[in-house]
Amino acid sequence: MTFDAVWWADDGPLPAVGYVDQRKLPHEVVRTFATNDAEIVAAIATLGVRGAPAIGVFGAYGIALARLLHTNDDDFVNAASRIRNARPTAVNLAWAVDRVCAQPADRYLAEARAIHDEQRAVDRAIGEHGADLMPQSGAVLTHCNTGPLATAGGGTALGVIIEAHARGRTLHVYVDETRPLLQGARLTIFELALAGVPATLIADGAAAATMRAKNVRAVVVGADRIATNGDTANKIGTYGVAIAAAHHGIPFYVAAPRSTVDFTLRDGSGMHIEERAADEVRGFAGIPTAPVDAAAYNPAFDVTPGHLIAGIITEYGIARPPYTESIPDLATRPSFGMLLGRS
Amino acid sequence: MTFDAVWWADDGPLPAVGYVDQRKLPHEVVRTFATNDAEIVAAIATLGVRGAPAIGVFGAYGIALARLLHTNDDDFVNAASRIRNARPTAVNLAWAVDRVCAQPADRYLAEARAIHDEQRAVDRAIGEHGADLMPQSGAVLTHCNTGPLATAGGGTALGVIIEAHARGRTLHVYVDETRPLLQGARLTIFELALAGVPATLIADGAAAATMRAKNVRAVVVGADRIATNGDTANKIGTYGVAIAAAHHGIPFYVAAPRSTVDFTLRDGSGMHIEERAADEVRGFAGIPTAPVDAAAYNPAFDVTPGHLIAGIITEYGIARPPYTESIPDLATRPSFGMLLGRS
Repeated sequence: MTFDAVWWADDGPLPAVGYVDQRKLPHEVVRTFATNDAEIVAAIATLGVRGAPAIGVFGAYGIALARLLHTNDDDFVNAASRIRNARPTAVNLAWAVDRVCAQPADRYLAEARAIHDEQRAVDRAIGEHGADLMPQSGAVLTHCNTGPLATAGGGTALGVIIEAHARGRTLHVYVDETRPLLQGARLTIFELALAGVPATLIADGAAAATMRAKNVRAVVVGADRIATNGDTANKIGTYGVAIAAAHHGIPFYVAAPRSTVDFTLRDGSGMHIEERAADEVRGFAGIPTAPVDAAAYNPAFDVTPGHLIAGIITEYGIARPPYTESIPDLATRPSFGMLLGRS
Repeated sequence: MTFDAVWWADDGPLPAVGYVDQRKLPHEVVRTFATNDAEIVAAIATLGVRGAPAIGVFGAYGIALARLLHTNDDDFVNAASRIRNARPTAVNLAWAVDRVCAQPADRYLAEARAIHDEQRAVDRAIGEHGADLMPQSGAVLTHCNTGPLATAGGGTALGVIIEAHARGRTLHVYVDETRPLLQGARLTIFELALAGVPATLIADGAAAATMRAKNVRAVVVGADRIATNGDTANKIGTYGVAIAAAHHGIPFYVAAPRSTVDFTLRDGSGMHIEERAADEVRGFAGIPTAPVDAAAYNPAFDVTPGHLIAGIITEYGIARPPYTESIPDLATRPSFGMLLGRS
């Protein structure tokens, strides 16, 4: 069983962008419709839609929707700008918005659909390349959510795991719950159950002990932004997992499409890290746990240095160290749009 | 402002052991009374009283209570056994129970009070020795709760921080929330606020990023059991923090009384690690987060190898590597009971 995370909804009375509201998973599967650009922005900002590639696809459809709604060009430009800036760290969103906006207005929807089709093809390729890196059997570990919900395709890191499972590798996946927003507990466990892959939930703090006690053979995570030296911004907690993997001699892989690479960044020091509200750490689901006036530091992402990463799994294959050579080389490859027969 | 975590309550109609129910903190400070050995066991097993030294003091009073209630010796022995085994990892509980039971029955309460007094003196000494290891100013990080609530005295790791603050060191404490039971968010933040020490809550996964971003100068944690080579069982998540501290070149200290050392253990491989209920990880503050049928792995503790520990702060001073020499040496020191003028 599977379903799309995001889709263009043109079968209703008015055009809209459909999405599965990820804040309500896993307890409810709620199909929701953003009917204007404010709702697009709100869905992204409040994590109704999350995962860098899924946000990109959703934002692309959002531009097509905004263009239909705003006959005034200034209104449209303002709406497009708000969509482009709905979350600061994910490079895919700005990339997808810019790509749609570079087209003539009557091609916006077709371009958004093309981005979505390419995402599916890219994810399929990532899964196929990455599956070969997974062990024939045994424990693997992942952090946050990088499955179909996160990409609007087959997933990145989770797509690798699901593809390896489909090829008969007998993996058992340990899933960090991923505080503060619990994407691992809520979404990754849900997606692995849908895919029939055996999985066990752990607290984030248990990752290092689990690596040792359960003989974890590989770690694979996604990425929100990658610099040309391999430094990788991903969900808060990734950096600690990478350090623990290195300590145990476990290969640590990043799976992400080329669109995640910011070819203008030489290293991670230039990455803007979004800080989110203190209440996310002070409680959960509206229930306070800490004293309500406690100070909290809540960076949404951290940066894992490239030297801790054994390989970066892209749609073009595995980029290996030295990343200062292998990553810039990715920029020279033909786009998947071209490979799919598009310009 | 401060209050006792645990006390002998003889001012009511019946004897009882009082405690502040730590499950209700920080939102409510509820003084609760265990009036029989079943309530003693339940308070320990459900973490109404937690923290290895506090459990030891509470268990000691519990033995005195059980002796008053059970005129039949077999009933008393069964009750004492249940108290001694209420939690498997903390060595202090068995140590305190055995110490009380080695006395004549009419001295049980006096011995429990002596254990409590000694705990206060031990904690004071730990705080004084450890304060010298803290930086003059800057960020420190801690995990779980090791303050007065955890020890029924002044605290171990948190006692070190509070004492350093009292001596004018301008520390800022980053506190891991400590999933699954959130002792950091609920208790440590609460205790640091009472003590007037500036503190900021973080998700456990943010510890490594915080070490780098906030220039953490020292990490100090407690212990539930220490082997003679320095291997230390402490709250799940400690091991990952220790690895991250080593990666950043940050000294990682353990603060614990000598009673935490198991002199029969040569290393951590013989430590029994309690596994707790899956629901603690599948939910958050009573709210299910993961699918209710998700598998979860929930070890309550992990073992940090001695080679990652820069020093172990005890009431006798700082034990330094090689621990195979400095820890067995602790066994030769006079007891704090003797130092306090008791046998």
